Amino acid sequence: MSVHFRKLALIGIGLIGSSIALAARRQGLVEVISIATRKQETLDQARDLELGDIYTLDAAEAVRGADLVILCAPVGAYEEIAKAIAPALSPGAIVSDVGSVKAHVVKVVAPHLPDTVSFIPGHPIAGTEHSGPAAGFAELFAGRWCILTPQPGASTADAEKLAAFWEGMGSNVEIMEAAHHDMVLAITSHIPHLIAYNIVGTADDLESVTKSEVIKFSAGGFRDFTRIAASDPVMWRDVFLTNRDAVLEMLGRFLGDLSVLQKAVETGDGPALESIFTRTRAIRRSIISAGQETAAADFGRPHE
Amino acid sequence: MSVHFRKLALIGIGLIGSSIALAARRQGLVEVISIATRKQETLDQARDLELGDIYTLDAAEAVRGADLVILCAPVGAYEEIAKAIAPALSPGAIVSDVGSVKAHVVKVVAPHLPDTVSFIPGHPIAGTEHSGPAAGFAELFAGRWCILTPQPGASTADAEKLAAFWEGMGSNVEIMEAAHHDMVLAITSHIPHLIAYNIVGTADDLESVTKSEVIKFSAGGFRDFTRIAASDPVMWRDVFLTNRDAVLEMLGRFLGDLSVLQKAVETGDGPALESIFTRTRAIRRSIISAGQETAAADFGRPHE
Ligand SMILES: NC(=O)c1ccc[n+]([C@@H]2O[C@H](COP(=O)([O-])OP(=O)(O)OC[C@H]3O[C@@H](n4cnc5c(N)ncnc54)[C@H](OP(=O)(O)O)[C@@H]3O)[C@@H](O)[C@H]2O)c1
Ligand SMILES: NC(=O)c1ccc[n+]([C@@H]2O[C@H](COP(=O)([O-])OP(=O)(O)OC[C@H]3O[C@@H](n4cnc5c(N)ncnc54)[C@H](OP(=O)(O)O)[C@@H]3O)[C@@H](O)[C@H]2O)c1
Repeated sequence: MSVHFRKLALIGIGLIGSSIALAARRQGLVEVISIATRKQETLDQARDLELGDIYTLDAAEAVRGADLVILCAPVGAYEEIAKAIAPALSPGAIVSDVGSVKAHVVKVVAPHLPDTVSFIPGHPIAGTEHSGPAAGFAELFAGRWCILTPQPGASTADAEKLAAFWEGMGSNVEIMEAAHHDMVLAITSHIPHLIAYNIVGTADDLESVTKSEVIKFSAGGFRDFTRIAASDPVMWRDVFLTNRDAVLEMLGRFLGDLSVLQKAVETGDGPALESIFTRTRAIRRSIISAGQETAAADFGRPHE
Repeated sequence: MSVHFRKLALIGIGLIGSSIALAARRQGLVEVISIATRKQETLDQARDLELGDIYTLDAAEAVRGADLVILCAPVGAYEEIAKAIAPALSPGAIVSDVGSVKAHVVKVVAPHLPDTVSFIPGHPIAGTEHSGPAAGFAELFAGRWCILTPQPGASTADAEKLAAFWEGMGSNVEIMEAAHHDMVLAITSHIPHLIAYNIVGTADDLESVTKSEVIKFSAGGFRDFTRIAASDPVMWRDVFLTNRDAVLEMLGRFLGDLSVLQKAVETGDGPALESIFTRTRAIRRSIISAGQETAAADFGRPHE
């Protein structure tokens, strides 16, 4: 399906917003790109990077005449943005987003939108630990999945059009209920981030092991966790504030399993440890086969 | 310091042993490499890969006449190996290892060794998730740290000679007490592995989220954890059996911190979450500055 939007409005132009701008432009999916953000400095940066065609600090101004609007700010800012843009939305526009949680987004955004638009929240499962307009690149979504959660009132044709937009940027698209999305992402993304932030904090606080030792000897595994623990603090604060129930449920599972492992270490139960450590290999192989991970050792990190 | 050993004996020839063989040969640090392992099939593989000069299933045979002996098997096999090689060790030889724990290694190996050798346990903080003789590469140790824990009776000259051997393979060397090593590695390596194995297990067991969903949407962070959770199960069983006290202490710290985070999620304490998430960024920057991690986004993973 060939897809073409007349005017794409991006509200927020960090890692994800700028990657969409670059990918949509490169693939010829849009005619005009209109960019709104909160800070003048960020807007100037976006302009210097030539990410779009129209630049404004006024989100309502940005969405005027747009047939596709994508919110690309931290989820905590959504309600205010929704209120601001609602009166300026064109009838027939598709309103979407890229936020890492979905039920909360539906709850705070949907009530403000006019009936004349199709509301189809989305979430590309792609990213890096960097943020801001300069962090984006056109290939970010290639080969990754994008989850769409069309809301009542959104037409099937619009959902297909938005799916084609993401496919145009190289993604695979999956349609899902917002609540289910939040469970899936709690385990595949939110808990990993929580754990990573936590262990990096623990290591930072020790008295028995110095900070310099943690840094020098981090190649033993710890450094892997520091990557996602270097992600944007505001974005992640908002994720944990808005996906509380699913996160706490998955955290409970994680802690239950961890106490089994802890017991096995305490009692020196070799067979239990070996069997737990054996079953986890298969899942990495599957992720690699599914094209969601590099097969190279050590993520293909450079070795001098 | 230029260093040269006449005969290097490697007992165990997996990822680490084969990397030593390749690096020592390439850097001209040894004349003859003698390789012993447990299984014929592994020995044949080592021979096909031309990792050494002498191949045997008899560890005692391998160490005869060697001036440097390095144990490269899982730590659980060490005591038996020590007993087997002790009578065949040459007076004046340096006996070392690469095991991921050190106090336990001293405890089970030292009593079996003759007074005529220098016992200097070691641990290169370098590795990948792959194992076996074909996984090794000569650059593995370049830019990484190797910790040495010289035991009473080992001469300073021998410790310097072994340090120069590791430096010859590109490593930086740090001397440390075995017990302290075990604390440092518990937080920088052992707990990260325990956590990673655990969350991969949790994800695998869920009913509310399918295995196929976990795989598809793993790029949200989860896939990072699957790398170290794909490490060798026997090696890691042995680590947790032999570094119990330090692991349990660090796990206690980790769990204490996690319950603070859990509470912040439960009560929706945004400022607490943001402040915890903010301080962890600095440590990754330090690890990158220290040359222990790539500065590239996403570990430099390829993007299509
Ligand atoms: N990072 C990832 O890996 C990833 C992956 C998938 C989805 N997401 C989701 O994508 C969204 C953006 O994340 P990101 O990584 O692109 O973040 P980012 O790089 O930190 O960028 C956030 C952008 O939002 C803008 N912004 C903040 N508050 C705003 C407001 N009140 N009104 C308008 N703009 C505002 C920021 O501009 P100013 O500088 O002007 O404040 C900035 O341009 C989040 O909802 C996140 O959950 C992130
Ligand atoms: N992997 C890492 O990232 C890493 C990093 C630093 C240190 N280490 C340490 O390095 C050591 C080796 O790890 P690795 O990653 O190289 O493991 P690996 O790739 O699984 O290789 C282990 C080797 O030990 C041999 N072996 C097993 N039992 C033996 C026995 N009873 N007698 C003689 N050889 C035996 C195996 O041969 P068979 O096939 O013949 O059994 C194999 O050649 C471990 O002590 C580990 O703690 C590992």
